[in-house]
Amino acid sequence: MLGGRLTGILVLITMFFTASCSTAGRVQPESVKQAAGIPKYIFYFIGDGMGMAHVKIADAVLEDDQVLWMTTLPVSGMASTHAENRYITGSAAAGTALATGRKTTIGTIAKNGNHSENLKTIAEMSRDNGMRVGIVSSVSIDHATPACFYAHADNRSMYSDIAVQMASSGFDYFGGGYARADLEDGKPLGKLITIMQDSGYNVIRGWEALGKAVPGQKYWAFENFDGSGALEYAIDRAPDDLTLADFTRNGIRLLDNDQGFFLMVEGGKIDWASHANDAATVAHEVVDFDLAIAEALEFYHEHPAETLIVVTADHECGGLALGYADKAYESDIGLLLSQKLSAQVFAGKVAQWTERKNVSFSMALDSAKVYFGLGNVQLDSALVLTSEEKMALRQAYTASMTGQNVGQKYGEGDPLTVSLTKLLNHKAGIGWTTGKHTALPVPVFAIGQGAREFCGIYDNTDIAKKIIKVAELQP
Amino acid sequence: MLGGRLTGILVLITMFFTASCSTAGRVQPESVKQAAGIPKYIFYFIGDGMGMAHVKIADAVLEDDQVLWMTTLPVSGMASTHAENRYITGSAAAGTALATGRKTTIGTIAKNGNHSENLKTIAEMSRDNGMRVGIVSSVSIDHATPACFYAHADNRSMYSDIAVQMASSGFDYFGGGYARADLEDGKPLGKLITIMQDSGYNVIRGWEALGKAVPGQKYWAFENFDGSGALEYAIDRAPDDLTLADFTRNGIRLLDNDQGFFLMVEGGKIDWASHANDAATVAHEVVDFDLAIAEALEFYHEHPAETLIVVTADHECGGLALGYADKAYESDIGLLLSQKLSAQVFAGKVAQWTERKNVSFSMALDSAKVYFGLGNVQLDSALVLTSEEKMALRQAYTASMTGQNVGQKYGEGDPLTVSLTKLLNHKAGIGWTTGKHTALPVPVFAIGQGAREFCGIYDNTDIAKKIIKVAELQP
Repeated sequence: MLGGRLTGILVLITMFFTASCSTAGRVQPESVKQAAGIPKYIFYFIGDGMGMAHVKIADAVLEDDQVLWMTTLPVSGMASTHAENRYITGSAAAGTALATGRKTTIGTIAKNGNHSENLKTIAEMSRDNGMRVGIVSSVSIDHATPACFYAHADNRSMYSDIAVQMASSGFDYFGGGYARADLEDGKPLGKLITIMQDSGYNVIRGWEALGKAVPGQKYWAFENFDGSGALEYAIDRAPDDLTLADFTRNGIRLLDNDQGFFLMVEGGKIDWASHANDAATVAHEVVDFDLAIAEALEFYHEHPAETLIVVTADHECGGLALGYADKAYESDIGLLLSQKLSAQVFAGKVAQWTERKNVSFSMALDSAKVYFGLGNVQLDSALVLTSEEKMALRQAYTASMTGQNVGQKYGEGDPLTVSLTKLLNHKAGIGWTTGKHTALPVPVFAIGQGAREFCGIYDNTDIAKKIIKVAELQP
Repeated sequence: MLGGRLTGILVLITMFFTASCSTAGRVQPESVKQAAGIPKYIFYFIGDGMGMAHVKIADAVLEDDQVLWMTTLPVSGMASTHAENRYITGSAAAGTALATGRKTTIGTIAKNGNHSENLKTIAEMSRDNGMRVGIVSSVSIDHATPACFYAHADNRSMYSDIAVQMASSGFDYFGGGYARADLEDGKPLGKLITIMQDSGYNVIRGWEALGKAVPGQKYWAFENFDGSGALEYAIDRAPDDLTLADFTRNGIRLLDNDQGFFLMVEGGKIDWASHANDAATVAHEVVDFDLAIAEALEFYHEHPAETLIVVTADHECGGLALGYADKAYESDIGLLLSQKLSAQVFAGKVAQWTERKNVSFSMALDSAKVYFGLGNVQLDSALVLTSEEKMALRQAYTASMTGQNVGQKYGEGDPLTVSLTKLLNHKAGIGWTTGKHTALPVPVFAIGQGAREFCGIYDNTDIAKKIIKVAELQP
């Protein structure tokens, strides 16, 4: 599914050492700098909730000889993520740090901690520098991470205030999910579409319209979305739906020009699947995010001396670990491949069963076999369900059907879905410690002009500062 | 406790960029290379079981304005750790990869997977290159990680076979723990001491003897050890006991010579405390390991163009996460400071109580307050014990006193100790997923001549290969 990866690695590494390292870290006269080129094509990839374990868990769905593109980038670093007022950050405070180089408080969108000051984002700096700007996300375009690049708001939940700032941003391209601000009961109101059109944006949906979009015009492009405005999970997606990679490739096409561009791409649902402790869905989301990075690498190969690609995350989510007590050293993360849909979509099915009262426990077990592989010993003997496991599943089934989640035994999710996901995770040797974020530093990967700056250990605010520095943006 | 750290950072970063980056990654004529200098002083620090969360958890015991020395090193990387025959590695296979650049099977010490071939280690290459060689560990000197640098054995448990290879290694300095091979019921037999002396080694114990040791002679230096030959945990250590930093500083003094040296230093008990899911002890062990790194940095400042320091780990242990479900975003890892001894030492106390039957539950709760801070609301209101928590502790106390650990409810450890450690960890917002290792890639930190090679994402075998390459060792 991701053939040709390995060949790419050597090419990448060779190009980096010839094109990039020789100019890093030394003071040079301005003329030399110009000759070497500063990056005028800037890619900023943010895997929401993506810790190093999330990157590694892609092993579960990659072929044996495949690796993620992001792990082939020649430069790596690590960034601490704490917010101004909390050890464990959230997407708004972390997004602000990544977008502006400044710490802020939990929930704040590109403003300082006490909300007295708007913080200029590197996307805005790029715009003011004459570059085109694109913002892509797999979740709603007014969600915290993308918002931190084009909006300023006291709180991430002020969706309407945030969404209208797309229209006044002057940015060239918004792509991915719909806007949560413009949804009622999961259906678009259309008010935001009018506002965007009045501000000169073409508002388009689906691959045909996106394919016909022409450089030089402004676009808000989206695709089929769920009730929150987000794209479907990669594991659930219809074959014809536009992917994050599609939005990235078309973004590059629309933004490419001699004055350069800045393109931020968020893999937003890595975080959501992690909140649900849904490891298989995480693995597919990480690979999906990585295929968007591959699009940027294609572009990099054409413009190695003028392109900078930075990949990072806003925070870790879930306390994900590639080892679990019950399995000790006998983990087999390949078992995650037997899961065929996200926990979220399965929970939707269970909700229907509950409503219609038409699914027996035996039928539920059949579904567990179809959708999670659990009980399918033809597939793998490790997927056998013991009588204890069946008994626990029966209890969870009853809890789901009756709505009785006594003492929050199953957390915030649907009891049967939580139990099945957890069971498959544990059989694969995957553990989680929380349904929230953690304080683990996040990985940074980089390639291209100025990439060497991103080696080492630093704070998440430093990532934006380094981009500003190497791209010579005016703050 | 670690004053002056911050001042050090700027100095380090400045020195790196002036001394190191300008020669990295480009093909140069031999004369230029010699002028720039290849590293002839090589430091290899291995934090056993140390994932990035272990590094970060040092926050719990550092002052607010302090950071670990290792995180100030200008170069960072990430290494995958899998063994030849298992996704989750062990210390022998991982130690072999780090020492030889070759994958091997679980349990194997510096031999290939089927044991048909001894794999030459970079310590042996350094010796044959005319450099002095030192091996330091906080666990027994014949434990898997140090063994992988001087011995070759089909299995790590062949302690006697391994230990005698110290004598024939020709290495100049062994420092740290005693040898497990030479212990019976925790008491030294002395046979290995005779073997070492017959091979020309001075065998010494304690700080006075180590202080008097003179360069040019060979030494095996150890310190007060526990029943397995390991140094005491930093959190438990007597004030006069030699530390890992002491063994490192004296190692540098004894090894320093014009032909250069290779010094491997293992922080071996980070792993042990992680197997016990004992977060406070981990935090203290990481800081203790870091102080040994500080000694190498002192030396680096005197010889920046000729020194290479590489810091890494053999694998992650415990699935440690800086976030835990019950605490959500209200973590307070500073609570770990209220723990005053290791879980291991506390379990020893409980074993005595069990034997002597002289400690009531109320007295046990007093101990919990003294040694873990639990119930000491004067210290922190978050340390309050709820009635449910007290009831759970009472059950654990009963299990400890009666030896009834039904269904391995408390895992492999002492029930009361496990319960107290877990309770404090959870109140601090720390979670673990296993008492074993995990497959998470480990961090790599580097500074000095050739350090730039260690930027990026690679396999653990590549670390040894990179050292061989930049130091021009003959394999």
